[in-house]
Amino acid sequence: MRTILVLNGPNLNRLGTREPEVYGSDTLDDIAAGLHQQASGLNVQVDVRQSNHEGHLIDWLHEAADSGVDAVILNAGGLTHTSVALRDAVAAIPTPVIEIHLSNPHARERFRHRSLIAGVCVGSISGFGASSYTLALDAAARL
Amino acid sequence: MRTILVLNGPNLNRLGTREPEVYGSDTLDDIAAGLHQQASGLNVQVDVRQSNHEGHLIDWLHEAADSGVDAVILNAGGLTHTSVALRDAVAAIPTPVIEIHLSNPHARERFRHRSLIAGVCVGSISGFGASSYTLALDAAARL
Amino acid sequence: MRTILVLNGPNLNRLGTREPEVYGSDTLDDIAAGLHQQASGLNVQVDVRQSNHEGHLIDWLHEAADSGVDAVILNAGGLTHTSVALRDAVAAIPTPVIEIHLSNPHARERFRHRSLIAGVCVGSISGFGASSYTLALDAAARL
Amino acid sequence: MRTILVLNGPNLNRLGTREPEVYGSDTLDDIAAGLHQQASGLNVQVDVRQSNHEGHLIDWLHEAADSGVDAVILNAGGLTHTSVALRDAVAAIPTPVIEIHLSNPHARERFRHRSLIAGVCVGSISGFGASSYTLALDAAARL
Amino acid sequence: MRTILVLNGPNLNRLGTREPEVYGSDTLDDIAAGLHQQASGLNVQVDVRQSNHEGHLIDWLHEAADSGVDAVILNAGGLTHTSVALRDAVAAIPTPVIEIHLSNPHARERFRHRSLIAGVCVGSISGFGASSYTLALDAAARL
Amino acid sequence: MRTILVLNGPNLNRLGTREPEVYGSDTLDDIAAGLHQQASGLNVQVDVRQSNHEGHLIDWLHEAADSGVDAVILNAGGLTHTSVALRDAVAAIPTPVIEIHLSNPHARERFRHRSLIAGVCVGSISGFGASSYTLALDAAARL
Amino acid sequence: MRTILVLNGPNLNRLGTREPEVYGSDTLDDIAAGLHQQASGLNVQVDVRQSNHEGHLIDWLHEAADSGVDAVILNAGGLTHTSVALRDAVAAIPTPVIEIHLSNPHARERFRHRSLIAGVCVGSISGFGASSYTLALDAAARL
Amino acid sequence: MRTILVLNGPNLNRLGTREPEVYGSDTLDDIAAGLHQQASGLNVQVDVRQSNHEGHLIDWLHEAADSGVDAVILNAGGLTHTSVALRDAVAAIPTPVIEIHLSNPHARERFRHRSLIAGVCVGSISGFGASSYTLALDAAARL
Amino acid sequence: MRTILVLNGPNLNRLGTREPEVYGSDTLDDIAAGLHQQASGLNVQVDVRQSNHEGHLIDWLHEAADSGVDAVILNAGGLTHTSVALRDAVAAIPTPVIEIHLSNPHARERFRHRSLIAGVCVGSISGFGASSYTLALDAAARL
Amino acid sequence: MRTILVLNGPNLNRLGTREPEVYGSDTLDDIAAGLHQQASGLNVQVDVRQSNHEGHLIDWLHEAADSGVDAVILNAGGLTHTSVALRDAVAAIPTPVIEIHLSNPHARERFRHRSLIAGVCVGSISGFGASSYTLALDAAARL
Amino acid sequence: MRTILVLNGPNLNRLGTREPEVYGSDTLDDIAAGLHQQASGLNVQVDVRQSNHEGHLIDWLHEAADSGVDAVILNAGGLTHTSVALRDAVAAIPTPVIEIHLSNPHARERFRHRSLIAGVCVGSISGFGASSYTLALDAAARL
Amino acid sequence: MRTILVLNGPNLNRLGTREPEVYGSDTLDDIAAGLHQQASGLNVQVDVRQSNHEGHLIDWLHEAADSGVDAVILNAGGLTHTSVALRDAVAAIPTPVIEIHLSNPHARERFRHRSLIAGVCVGSISGFGASSYTLALDAAARL
Repeated sequence: MRTILVLNGPNLNRLGTREPEVYGSDTLDDIAAGLHQQASGLNVQVDVRQSNHEGHLIDWLHEAADSGVDAVILNAGGLTHTSVALRDAVAAIPTPVIEIHLSNPHARERFRHRSLIAGVCVGSISGFGASSYTLALDAAARL
Repeated sequence: MRTILVLNGPNLNRLGTREPEVYGSDTLDDIAAGLHQQASGLNVQVDVRQSNHEGHLIDWLHEAADSGVDAVILNAGGLTHTSVALRDAVAAIPTPVIEIHLSNPHARERFRHRSLIAGVCVGSISGFGASSYTLALDAAARL
Repeated sequence: MRTILVLNGPNLNRLGTREPEVYGSDTLDDIAAGLHQQASGLNVQVDVRQSNHEGHLIDWLHEAADSGVDAVILNAGGLTHTSVALRDAVAAIPTPVIEIHLSNPHARERFRHRSLIAGVCVGSISGFGASSYTLALDAAARL
Repeated sequence: MRTILVLNGPNLNRLGTREPEVYGSDTLDDIAAGLHQQASGLNVQVDVRQSNHEGHLIDWLHEAADSGVDAVILNAGGLTHTSVALRDAVAAIPTPVIEIHLSNPHARERFRHRSLIAGVCVGSISGFGASSYTLALDAAARL
Repeated sequence: MRTILVLNGPNLNRLGTREPEVYGSDTLDDIAAGLHQQASGLNVQVDVRQSNHEGHLIDWLHEAADSGVDAVILNAGGLTHTSVALRDAVAAIPTPVIEIHLSNPHARERFRHRSLIAGVCVGSISGFGASSYTLALDAAARL
Repeated sequence: MRTILVLNGPNLNRLGTREPEVYGSDTLDDIAAGLHQQASGLNVQVDVRQSNHEGHLIDWLHEAADSGVDAVILNAGGLTHTSVALRDAVAAIPTPVIEIHLSNPHARERFRHRSLIAGVCVGSISGFGASSYTLALDAAARL
Repeated sequence: MRTILVLNGPNLNRLGTREPEVYGSDTLDDIAAGLHQQASGLNVQVDVRQSNHEGHLIDWLHEAADSGVDAVILNAGGLTHTSVALRDAVAAIPTPVIEIHLSNPHARERFRHRSLIAGVCVGSISGFGASSYTLALDAAARL
Repeated sequence: MRTILVLNGPNLNRLGTREPEVYGSDTLDDIAAGLHQQASGLNVQVDVRQSNHEGHLIDWLHEAADSGVDAVILNAGGLTHTSVALRDAVAAIPTPVIEIHLSNPHARERFRHRSLIAGVCVGSISGFGASSYTLALDAAARL
Repeated sequence: MRTILVLNGPNLNRLGTREPEVYGSDTLDDIAAGLHQQASGLNVQVDVRQSNHEGHLIDWLHEAADSGVDAVILNAGGLTHTSVALRDAVAAIPTPVIEIHLSNPHARERFRHRSLIAGVCVGSISGFGASSYTLALDAAARL
Repeated sequence: MRTILVLNGPNLNRLGTREPEVYGSDTLDDIAAGLHQQASGLNVQVDVRQSNHEGHLIDWLHEAADSGVDAVILNAGGLTHTSVALRDAVAAIPTPVIEIHLSNPHARERFRHRSLIAGVCVGSISGFGASSYTLALDAAARL
Repeated sequence: MRTILVLNGPNLNRLGTREPEVYGSDTLDDIAAGLHQQASGLNVQVDVRQSNHEGHLIDWLHEAADSGVDAVILNAGGLTHTSVALRDAVAAIPTPVIEIHLSNPHARERFRHRSLIAGVCVGSISGFGASSYTLALDAAARL
Repeated sequence: MRTILVLNGPNLNRLGTREPEVYGSDTLDDIAAGLHQQASGLNVQVDVRQSNHEGHLIDWLHEAADSGVDAVILNAGGLTHTSVALRDAVAAIPTPVIEIHLSNPHARERFRHRSLIAGVCVGSISGFGASSYTLALDAAARL
C-alpha cells in the first residue's frame, strides 16, 4: 500500500482559530480526518504531521526518503518564502513533493509572492482552502 | 448541468509537438478528450477552447459570465506573466476562475515567476502536466 | 466639422457591471450617449469604439491618422501598463491622443502606476469616472 | 456660491519666464485672470495662491478644510514627487483635491514618473498647459 | 529642572480630525495637556510645538541645542521618510532625540517603511497612539 | 492579575557578554530581575523566556493565546528580519504583541532595516537598551 | 526552393510615414519589393506579412513550422520587449528565427533594452534600417 | 561689478559646531569673511545667505535671476539629495549655479550618492572643506 | 591540546546520497573520519556535529565560546543565505569561525550568491568538495 | 579602396579551442582568412586585429579615425558588458562601428544582456557564429 | 618644489576632436600648456600624462607614491564608473588624489552617475570644462 | 613535476604598504618566497606573477593552458568584481583555477560582494591573509 506523508509547517496547528476569513474554519484535525477517509477510498495510507520547527520538517523529509514514503504533500506555511534549507531538503530526497497552500499567496503581501520551494517540487496547488489538501492527495495517489 | 469552460492561451495548440520534455507528449485534443470523459463522470459539461489572441480569451471570459458558465479553468500560457488586461477580465466577471499550468513556472526562467493572474483567481494548480487539467476539473466541479 | 475618435480597450465593454465600486455604474453605451450629446453642443462629431484586442486599437489609431481624425481619446485599460506596441502606435501617428482613465491608477496596485502611453500623449486625465470622458472631449475639442 | 482654491507650489511663480518650451508663455497671473473669468461663468469663486514653501501649501490645505472650501486644485510642482507630508495633508482633509500639471511628467525625467499625491486625489489632469487649470476648474465645479 | 522639547511635524495639528481610525481622536492639545500633567509628576518641564514647515523643525532642533534642552521627542510626520535635512539636523546637535509615531509605519504604505531619522535617534517608539508620547516622555526623563 | 509574557529570541542569552558596546552590559537575568520588580509595582506578573529556536518562539506565542496571557513583549533578535513564520504566529493569535529591540536596527546594517514583524504588532520600541523592556512593560500593562 | 517567411509586427505598416528620422523613409512595400528581388538572386522565395495583432504573428509562426518554411525573419516591433507568448511561439517551433530591428533598440528608451525574443532566436540584427532585412535574408538563405 | 550669491541650505548655520570631524571647525561666518576678502581681490562682490527652509532658497534663486546676480554658489545641504523643487528652481533661472559640498557625499551614506541638483548646475565641487567655497568663487568669477 | 568544533547545518546528514554530482559521494561520517585522522597529525582534536535545526547550531556556537573551543568550522548549508540569527551567533562569540561549503555557491542559483555569515567569519573556503573541510582544518589549526 | 578594420577583444584569440559548443570550431585565423577572401570580392580591404587589452582596442579605434578607416567591425568580447571607456572610444570617433558577437548574449548569463557599446554603434549583429563577421563585412562595405 | 601629477584616462587624448559640444575644443596639449603656465605662477611643477590603459594609470598612481609626488589630479574618463581596481590604487597610496571631469556626469547617462573613485578621493571637481583642471591645480597646490 | 601559476592582479604589488590593517604587512615578495619554500615541500613548482593590467592576466591565463600549467591560483584584486573578460578567460581554458583573496570581500563594501570569477573557478579561499595563498597551494597541489 502506498504511503503519503502530509507535512504541515509553522502555525498550521492554529487552523480554524487563525484568521478564519483567510484560512477557513476547518482545524488541522478536521483536515486530517478527511484525508484519512479519502485515503482509504484511494487505497493509500496517509500520515499527517505538523511542526513549528523548520528542523523537524527537514528531519521528516529525510525520514520520508529513508522509510520509502511514496510522496510528500508539503504545506510549509511561512517557511515557503524564506527557507533555503527546506528547499535543499526537498531537493536532497528522491521522493516527489507537492507544494500546497490553503490561501492564494499571490493575492496577499508581496513577500509571499516568491516560493523558494516551488522550483524543486513536482507541482503546486494553492487557494482552494482545505480542498488544496484533497486535490493534492488525489494527485499524489496518481504519481 | 454545470458547465465548465476550459480556456487555453497562446501556443497551447502546439502541445505534444512543442518541447515535449517540458510539456509532455499529449496534444490539446488528447487532453480535451480526457476532460470530456472525466466530465461525464462528474456530471458536468466542459467546453475546451484555444486561441493565440489575448483578445479572444478576454471575449470568452466575458461570454462565460453572460452565458452562466459555472467556472473557468484558464491556462493563459505566456500571457500569465504579462497581461494586465487578462487579469482585469478575470476580475471583471463574477465567475470563479482557476489558473493552471502544465509545467511549474517557478522551475523555469525568472520572468515566469510572476503571475499577474494568480491574485484574482480562486486557486492555482501547476506542474502536473496534463493532470493539472484533471485536478482543476475536479476542483471546478466542487466549487 | 472636427471628428474625435474615442477608443476603449480591454474590458471597458463590461462597464457598469464590472466592479462598480471602482468604475461606477454607467455602461459604455451610457457614456457614448452622453458624449454624442456633448459633441453636438461643441459642434464636433464623436466616434466611440471598443475592443478587447490590442491589434484593433492599433489598427484604429492608424486609421485615425489616415482618415483625418482631429484627435483621439484613448482609454487603453490594462494595456496602458504593458503595451509598447500601443505606445508606438500613438507615436506613429501625427494625430494628438489624450489618455484617460475612469479610476485613478495611482490609488490601485503598483503595476498600474506606470503608464507606457502617457509619455507620447498630449495629456492625461484620470480618476473622474465617466467625467474623465467629458473633460477629455472638452480638451480634444479645443486642441 | 461654491469656492475653489487653486494652490500652486514651488517655481510656478516663474511661469512664462521658466523654460517656456516646456511650460508655455502664460504667466501665473494670466492663468489666474482666465480662471476668474471662467469661474464667473460657472458661478463659482476661485482663490489662486502660490508658494515656494511646502509648509504654506500644507497650511492652506488645512485652512481649506476649516473654511469650507468646496474643492482644491493643486499643482504641487516638484513636491509632487517627493513630499509625503503634502500627501498626508491631502489625506488629512475631507475636501476633494484635483492634481494638475502643465506638462506631462511621464514625458520627462524618471524621477517625475512617481506622484506621491495622485493616490489621495480624486483625479489628475496633466499635459494640457494652461488648459490643465481650465479643465480642472470645470471638473471641480461639477464635483 | 530638566526640559524636554516635543516637536511635531506636518499635519499633526489635524490630530483628532484627521483619519481618526488611523490616528485616534485625541487632538494635539489633548496630548500636550496630558504631557504637561505627566511632566509635573516626573519633575521635568515640557515644551510642545508643531509646524508644517521642515525649516521650523530644523530651527527648533538647533535652538534646543543652544538653549540647553535635555532631550527632544520628535514626531516628524511625513518628513520622517523623506527629509535628509531633518536627519542632518538631529545629527548636528548633541541633544538626544527620540523618534515617535502614533501609528505603526510598517503596517502602512511601503514608502513609510524607511525612516531617514531613526538611524541618528537614540530610540524609536511607534504604534501606541497617544501613548507613544507618554512612553517617550518617560524614556526622555530617564536619559 | 494580568500576565505579560516576555519572549526573547536567538542570542539574547548572550546579553552582557555579546558586543557590549552595542547591547550593553546587563545580562538577560539582570533584565528579567528588573522586570519582575517593575511588574510587582504595576500589579502584573511577567514570564521571561528565551530560545534560540524559531519553533519554540512560535510554540510560546500559541501557548500565550491558549493560556490567556494578556500581552506579549517580543524581542525576536535576528529573526525579526527574516521570519515570515514568526510574523504569521503573531498574526495567528489575538493576544497583542509589542516588538522591542535593545539597539536601533536602523543605525546598523541594511538587512536590519526591514522588520517582518512590525506590521502585525501593536507597537514597536527600540534603541533604549535594557530600558526598551521597561518601557514595553509599562506599555503592555496599560493595553 | 527554400522559403523564407518575413514577419512584421505592430506599426511596421506605418514605415515611411512613422518617425522617418528614426525608421527611414522606405515603406514596408518598398522593403518587400527589395526582398523579392534579392530573393530571386539567392534562389529562395520570400513571403512578407505584417499584422498589428500578436495572435496573428503567433499563428503565422505555427503555420511556418507546419508548412515547412525554412527560416523566419521576425521584426516583432514593440512586442519584442513585452511578449512572452511570442517568445514561446518561437521556442515552440523547430524553424530557425532571426530577430531584426530597423533602429538600434539600445540607443532608445530603457524599456527597449530588453528583448524577450532574442534568447530563443538563432541570431539578431539591428540598427541598419532597411538593410537589416537585407542582411537577415542573406543570413537566412545560408542557414 | 559682478555679484555672486552664496546660498547655504539646512544646518550649515551649525558649521564649526556640527560634527567637526566631518565638516571642519570653521563657522559659516568664518567662511563668509574669507569669501568677502577673496571677493575684493577678484573685484566681485559676494552675498552670503543661509536658511533651513527650502522655500527661502527657492525664493532667493528666483530673486537672483530678477536682480541680475551673475552666478550662484549653492551648498544645498541635505536638500541636495531630496528636493526636486530646488532642482526646478535652478533650472527655472538663467543664472549659472555651482553646486558645492564641504565633505565628499560619495564617501558617506548611500542616500547621499545621488544629487538631484548636479544635473542642472554648470559644475560641482566637493570634499575640500571650506576650500570648496574658495574654489567655487574663483570659478564663479571666471564664468 | 587545541579543540576545533566542526558544525554542519541542514541536509549535510544526507551527504553521499544527496545530489552526488553536486556534493560528491563521501558521507558526513567519511568526512568526520578523515578529519579525526588529520587532526591527530596536527595535534588538535575535532568534534564534528550536524543538525537540521538553526537553534541547535546557535546553541553549539554559544557552547563553543563557553567551553573554550579554539575555532569553529561552520558549513551552514542553506542557512548561509537566510539566517541573520546565525550571523548574530557568530558575531556574539569571540571564537574565530571559518565558513566552508562543499560546492561553489556562486556557480549555483542566484539566492546562493549572498552569504549572511561571510561578513563575520575570519575566512571562507568553498568549492573543494570534502577538501573544503581538510583545508579549513589546516587553517583552523594555524589560527 | 575602402578599408574595414575588424577588432577583436579579450579571449577571441582562443576561438576554436574555447568552449566550441558555444563559439564554434573556427579559429580567429580561419575567420580572418575568410574575411580577406570576402573582402576582395567586395573590393574593400580588411585589417583583422585582436587584443586582450582594453587599452589597445581604444588605441586602435582612435587610430582608425586618424588613418581614415571607413568602418570598424567590433567584437568586444566580455568588455561589451563592462567598459564605459570602450563605449566612449566608439563615440569619440566619427568612423561608423558595427557591434558583433559570435553567440547570442541574450541566451546566456544575465550580465551579458546589457551592451554598453550597442547604443553608440550603427548596428549590431549577433548569434550567427563566424557568419556574424561575414554579415558585418557585407554591411560595412555598404555603409 | 611641490610636484603635481595630472593623470588622464581613456579617450582624453581625443579632446578637442571628440564631441566638442560636450567636452569643448581645447586639446589635451592646450590644457597641459595652460597647466604648466599656471604651475609656474604657483611655484609647483606639473607632470601631465594620458593613457587608454587602466593598468598604466594604476602603475602611475603607485609610482606617484614612490617618487614623492605631492598630489594627483585624476580624470579617469569612463573608468570612473567601472574600475574597482583604480579605486583600490587610489586607496593604496598615501598621496592625496583629486577627481576631475570636464563635463558634469550627472547631466549625462545614468551609468555615469556613480563614481567608484569619488569615495577615496579628497575632493571632486566637475563640469567646468578645461577649468576643472585649473581649479584642481589651485586646490592641489594648497593641499 | 607539477607547475602551479600564481597570478596577482591590480595593486597586489603594493602589499605590505597598502592599508596593512586590511591586507597585512607581508609584501608580495615575502609571500612568493614562502610559496616557493612550501612548493618544494609539496614537490611542485610555482611561478608567481603580478600585473596591474587586465590584459596581461588574460594573456597569462591563456599561456597557462598552452604551456601545460597544472593549476592557477588567481588573486584578481579589484577585477574580481568587474571583469567579464577575466571570467571568460578562466572559462576559456581547461586549467583549473582557484580564486583567492587576502581579506574577506563580504566584510567590505557592497560592490565587493559579487565575484564575477567565482562561478567559473573550482573553488574559492578568502580572508586568511597570506595564508589564503598557502591554503590554495595545498589545494592546488592535490587537484
